[in-house]
Amino acid sequence: MHISITTPLAASACWSWLLIPMSQVAGRMATEVGAHFLRKPGAGRGKLLSGLPGAPPAHVVVLGAGIVAENAIDTAVALGARVTVLDTRLEKLRMVEQRWPGRANTLMSSPLALAAALKGADVLICAVLVPGASAPKLVTREMVRSMGKGAVIVDVSIDQGGTCETSRATTHDEPTYVEEGVVHYCVPNMPGAVPQTSTAALTAATLPYVLKLANLGTREALLRDPALAKGVLVSEGHVTYPALAESLGLPYVPLAEALPPA
Amino acid sequence: MHISITTPLAASACWSWLLIPMSQVAGRMATEVGAHFLRKPGAGRGKLLSGLPGAPPAHVVVLGAGIVAENAIDTAVALGARVTVLDTRLEKLRMVEQRWPGRANTLMSSPLALAAALKGADVLICAVLVPGASAPKLVTREMVRSMGKGAVIVDVSIDQGGTCETSRATTHDEPTYVEEGVVHYCVPNMPGAVPQTSTAALTAATLPYVLKLANLGTREALLRDPALAKGVLVSEGHVTYPALAESLGLPYVPLAEALPPA
Amino acid sequence: MHISITTPLAASACWSWLLIPMSQVAGRMATEVGAHFLRKPGAGRGKLLSGLPGAPPAHVVVLGAGIVAENAIDTAVALGARVTVLDTRLEKLRMVEQRWPGRANTLMSSPLALAAALKGADVLICAVLVPGASAPKLVTREMVRSMGKGAVIVDVSIDQGGTCETSRATTHDEPTYVEEGVVHYCVPNMPGAVPQTSTAALTAATLPYVLKLANLGTREALLRDPALAKGVLVSEGHVTYPALAESLGLPYVPLAEALPPA
Amino acid sequence: MHISITTPLAASACWSWLLIPMSQVAGRMATEVGAHFLRKPGAGRGKLLSGLPGAPPAHVVVLGAGIVAENAIDTAVALGARVTVLDTRLEKLRMVEQRWPGRANTLMSSPLALAAALKGADVLICAVLVPGASAPKLVTREMVRSMGKGAVIVDVSIDQGGTCETSRATTHDEPTYVEEGVVHYCVPNMPGAVPQTSTAALTAATLPYVLKLANLGTREALLRDPALAKGVLVSEGHVTYPALAESLGLPYVPLAEALPPA
Amino acid sequence: MHISITTPLAASACWSWLLIPMSQVAGRMATEVGAHFLRKPGAGRGKLLSGLPGAPPAHVVVLGAGIVAENAIDTAVALGARVTVLDTRLEKLRMVEQRWPGRANTLMSSPLALAAALKGADVLICAVLVPGASAPKLVTREMVRSMGKGAVIVDVSIDQGGTCETSRATTHDEPTYVEEGVVHYCVPNMPGAVPQTSTAALTAATLPYVLKLANLGTREALLRDPALAKGVLVSEGHVTYPALAESLGLPYVPLAEALPPA
Amino acid sequence: MHISITTPLAASACWSWLLIPMSQVAGRMATEVGAHFLRKPGAGRGKLLSGLPGAPPAHVVVLGAGIVAENAIDTAVALGARVTVLDTRLEKLRMVEQRWPGRANTLMSSPLALAAALKGADVLICAVLVPGASAPKLVTREMVRSMGKGAVIVDVSIDQGGTCETSRATTHDEPTYVEEGVVHYCVPNMPGAVPQTSTAALTAATLPYVLKLANLGTREALLRDPALAKGVLVSEGHVTYPALAESLGLPYVPLAEALPPA
Repeated sequence: MHISITTPLAASACWSWLLIPMSQVAGRMATEVGAHFLRKPGAGRGKLLSGLPGAPPAHVVVLGAGIVAENAIDTAVALGARVTVLDTRLEKLRMVEQRWPGRANTLMSSPLALAAALKGADVLICAVLVPGASAPKLVTREMVRSMGKGAVIVDVSIDQGGTCETSRATTHDEPTYVEEGVVHYCVPNMPGAVPQTSTAALTAATLPYVLKLANLGTREALLRDPALAKGVLVSEGHVTYPALAESLGLPYVPLAEALPPA
Repeated sequence: MHISITTPLAASACWSWLLIPMSQVAGRMATEVGAHFLRKPGAGRGKLLSGLPGAPPAHVVVLGAGIVAENAIDTAVALGARVTVLDTRLEKLRMVEQRWPGRANTLMSSPLALAAALKGADVLICAVLVPGASAPKLVTREMVRSMGKGAVIVDVSIDQGGTCETSRATTHDEPTYVEEGVVHYCVPNMPGAVPQTSTAALTAATLPYVLKLANLGTREALLRDPALAKGVLVSEGHVTYPALAESLGLPYVPLAEALPPA
Repeated sequence: MHISITTPLAASACWSWLLIPMSQVAGRMATEVGAHFLRKPGAGRGKLLSGLPGAPPAHVVVLGAGIVAENAIDTAVALGARVTVLDTRLEKLRMVEQRWPGRANTLMSSPLALAAALKGADVLICAVLVPGASAPKLVTREMVRSMGKGAVIVDVSIDQGGTCETSRATTHDEPTYVEEGVVHYCVPNMPGAVPQTSTAALTAATLPYVLKLANLGTREALLRDPALAKGVLVSEGHVTYPALAESLGLPYVPLAEALPPA
Repeated sequence: MHISITTPLAASACWSWLLIPMSQVAGRMATEVGAHFLRKPGAGRGKLLSGLPGAPPAHVVVLGAGIVAENAIDTAVALGARVTVLDTRLEKLRMVEQRWPGRANTLMSSPLALAAALKGADVLICAVLVPGASAPKLVTREMVRSMGKGAVIVDVSIDQGGTCETSRATTHDEPTYVEEGVVHYCVPNMPGAVPQTSTAALTAATLPYVLKLANLGTREALLRDPALAKGVLVSEGHVTYPALAESLGLPYVPLAEALPPA
Repeated sequence: MHISITTPLAASACWSWLLIPMSQVAGRMATEVGAHFLRKPGAGRGKLLSGLPGAPPAHVVVLGAGIVAENAIDTAVALGARVTVLDTRLEKLRMVEQRWPGRANTLMSSPLALAAALKGADVLICAVLVPGASAPKLVTREMVRSMGKGAVIVDVSIDQGGTCETSRATTHDEPTYVEEGVVHYCVPNMPGAVPQTSTAALTAATLPYVLKLANLGTREALLRDPALAKGVLVSEGHVTYPALAESLGLPYVPLAEALPPA
Repeated sequence: MHISITTPLAASACWSWLLIPMSQVAGRMATEVGAHFLRKPGAGRGKLLSGLPGAPPAHVVVLGAGIVAENAIDTAVALGARVTVLDTRLEKLRMVEQRWPGRANTLMSSPLALAAALKGADVLICAVLVPGASAPKLVTREMVRSMGKGAVIVDVSIDQGGTCETSRATTHDEPTYVEEGVVHYCVPNMPGAVPQTSTAALTAATLPYVLKLANLGTREALLRDPALAKGVLVSEGHVTYPALAESLGLPYVPLAEALPPA
């Protein structure tokens, strides 16, 4: 039986919830990485995220309020930073206010609000992910410059091109570069830095499907579980995923008909 | 007037409280540094401190429950790690239990308890500081080995020689080395990595004294403020600090007599 | 007019939300009961759930993450236990991590993970309820034995047959027995132990319906409120509940037609 | 060498801090025990401490605000009860308000205030311990009766005679009796119910002394550690504890003179 | 092009979520206002909401558990009051118990329960809003009288006629009157007292729509965004809102047909 | 027997702890009052202390970190304000950071730091009390002006002359005036606004003394309780309080000798 179970990259819309753990890792790591590169040695400005009695905390700006952002905010609040969150969805800002009362300033995102928030900020975490699309270039070069020397940008959206005009992909081995005086961390595959945790979490997320495939056989499992079925693009030479059929100009065949008989 | 206001290193007993901010920085940084070197790339085992739903958190062992340790524990709890604290002072363990209820396992420290706690631990933070003395070598090479490949040790006590048999001082530029498979971070002057925060906090701690010296003049300030007076070791050639006089075999002269007339 | 308002037992699917208070009671009581039978005298191993500074807390394993489990976890966290939660639904594990950050280890349930979690555990709370079905026998005799002498099992699922191979129903008057050295508490109707609380909560849950019946009359109330209507199995001799009609081989008559005229 | 290291009972003033773990156990257990006997079967009134949405929580009155009380309050707050605390020391009431903000009603204790608080209360925890003295009989038979049928009293002060007119000592095997309709739990040695926890905590409390005795020898240890020295009542036939000498009419000999030579 | 974008009052059903910020302001202000008028000078009884160690907190009763109520409860809990919440929706009471554990008594609302809760209460906040309908007169004159002299009522539902028999609208300049000895605060437009906050929040709520209208033009924006389209009642003389058409006896024309061509 | 039990005003040093409840009331009220006068109508700038999602919270500056300040901070944090605290005692700033982690910016007080903090602030609470001395005039007219139109100052130190150059005493009936565009609330006896709470708390604070006087008689009570004795200034015509004797040029007679015989 020739069935392709698609990789998440190829069918992000339908399998994207399997990637929630990866977004959680990226968000939590983003703040920790920001804290790290804010310290010396290196180009960071030498500040402790929490500050100290008599010394002000660092100001962390989080752009977005989705899953990556939630985890970045949670870590920034935990580490004692001053936190500002921008999003265009008011219901997300409400969630932020209720979950971390008094701990995060919430702003309706607009170029004006963003520019004001970034001036002098210590860390910017870009967590705007539009599924299946390029990240919008919301942060201009001028805004980056306004953060001042030794600030840090962690652009989690680099997988989709990055949110800053100044962002370009880096690697785990050479994770940062300095532009406009600001340290940029733009590693596309952040969860790769914590393989133990990522693997365990991904296994937890996929285990129920693996068990279903093992217990029922592939055919039965696909027929019974629509979530699983959505991951099949091609079966026995038939295209079983409408969007793919349309974009290839091939006929679409429903999965139930395309599967080989039991 | 020739008066030496001693540096903290020379009179740690009397001025040590001025150094509280430095201990706070070191403690908070210790956990953040441990989290960083536990990630890849590098020799760390690739784990996120908080874990994830379905993936266990990292296990952080904190040796000691003083100021450095308190700040390390607070950060480890904030980042979601599993935390174990060892100290020989029961009242400190009580403080830990009350301040972070249900979040830190407290153990009366003994070689046996320490060995058991370290087996397989992800991060060890050595925060045992005996003022004015060498740190005791509580952690044997064998205990280090038992943590397993890719664990991390942050030895804050390296200023006083270090708590691990395997510890030796490193620098901010080359902060770690690997021994027995375990990453060792042993930078003596940790607050040097966050000069902005450290300077502001130290200024806050010393400002009241500076103002007193400026407003009253040195003589008056020293006569009125016993805390300040304790920082003077030598005045006009007379030794005004009993311990120093004794160790030098010189006569001790009370400060009030040794100060030059107004 | 002859209308049977069904008891919850007879129509658990449609009225099950009325039983939420009973699940809440059972969950909260489960942890308190576990704490009680872990103490002496009796076969419990003589441990305080919270432990003490220098004495480790008890380890409570909760199987499931639904309403019963949520309440059991909440109480176990409140009492200071070390808590491990297993479920096969990742979104439930996420809820646990977010609601009790750093306080409960979350594991994707599998025979392997369960066996590992139970080894040496002090209390096991079985809170796996599959509505309308027998509870799956997830905990083998061997897993029970691995908990060790003096551990305690509270099997809340005993109403549906129990989750442990070793579980068999007990009564409020003789609530426990020992098997494999482990104390088993398997009382089917746990809320019966707190009649004051259960009655008040059930009344709160049913009051809106009672008021509707009283104010509108039975006929009108049933016609206007679908939730209420679903509780009627038989009216004027007609079977008005499809599943019942099918299982009895009798014709199904929609409620609106079966009700006597106003 | 004949030296009696006194038992806590004989020298409660000096060694009492060693007993802190025992007070902690008793306090935490007191609330758990109250919750247990408030449930059916038995004479309790059948109430869940936390109540439920729509069903009020139980009312727990704690008499005293010392170590036993603190631990009882903490557990009662954790379990969701409504809590009232009475003490005659305002600074203790302040501590209660700050530690559990909004969670405990604090009252300056007086016969009037106590009578008002107890009327209809579900659980009374007597935690008034006057070191070395009989507990004052603050709770009259009439106050007990006013709690109403099915209430529960846990009299932790029974070691020193009990705080209620109606209290008399019971045992772990037969822990309760009913008087004036109210369940009385008056087991003198509550920590005996959790030997694992108690032993570990006591060991943690005494370990530093044991190590000192082992490492230095008894003589040196006693001479160097005043806390340890205070535990010695008689040495080589000389009474070394002033209060004991006075009460026996024997001469007092300082410990340093009474110890046998090295 | 003649299009009426309706005011919230005219189309509360469809635009009501735009008013969430106004309900949040009203709820938070309600408790602060209650605290203010409970103080002297004036007719209030001279009590601090939080009480003090040894002095009981004020009792705040919140009628309803929707958005206004949630914000009022949150503020009352924050200020340390004793809080009782009544609603007829059990799921709302559950939300209250879980969000503020141990901090609010939850009662299924009924005339009996309400009367019992109000007796002697210090502050009543009426937060029962039935969209588009008159507020039910749940609080009788007698219940008001039972609160006692110097109590305070804040009737947020006065916009819709008020929940108390004794409520009548007041103004920001003369915000209160006394009836039955109880201070009544019944200002219809509470958010008018904090114009800076209200304006900013409303702007945040409407900004995305304004941007859409500006970027796409009115026609395109209305055709693409159903939420926006629902706000149009009349276009080019055609009634485009079904309920309005029906109540006016005019024909209903779908918006797409009624809009002028591009 | 002619004994004057002094009023707190006459012997503030010795009886000052009796006044702790009054400082607590003043501190809690200060924030509530600030929130009230920040709202319209009136000269306040019309802001809600907590802000809203998308609308920034108000900025509250607290000058001092003693008992009044602690209570003001606690209330400001509870109400969701952004909080900045200034004091010259670093250990107080540490307490603030630990008690409200991430919720209050702490600054070492200096004219420079104060001026920077006040610029544009919404509420200033002056809580600097130097026992028995005039409050220092730390806030200049220019700093007041820099807060901007519609800001609010609550000067709790007005009892001792006030901390602002622009402060002058007001009354409960006419509590505020506007100067430099800023609303000033300077009522000397703030606890007078909540007589019920203040009286209950004061009674709780004094009750133990009253009972002692009642049970032992005045003479015995004074001889046995040094705290009580310190409150006596004159007995049988003899001055029994050293500072008073000195300032009057009269002989000092120890209380034991000055008391009339039993």
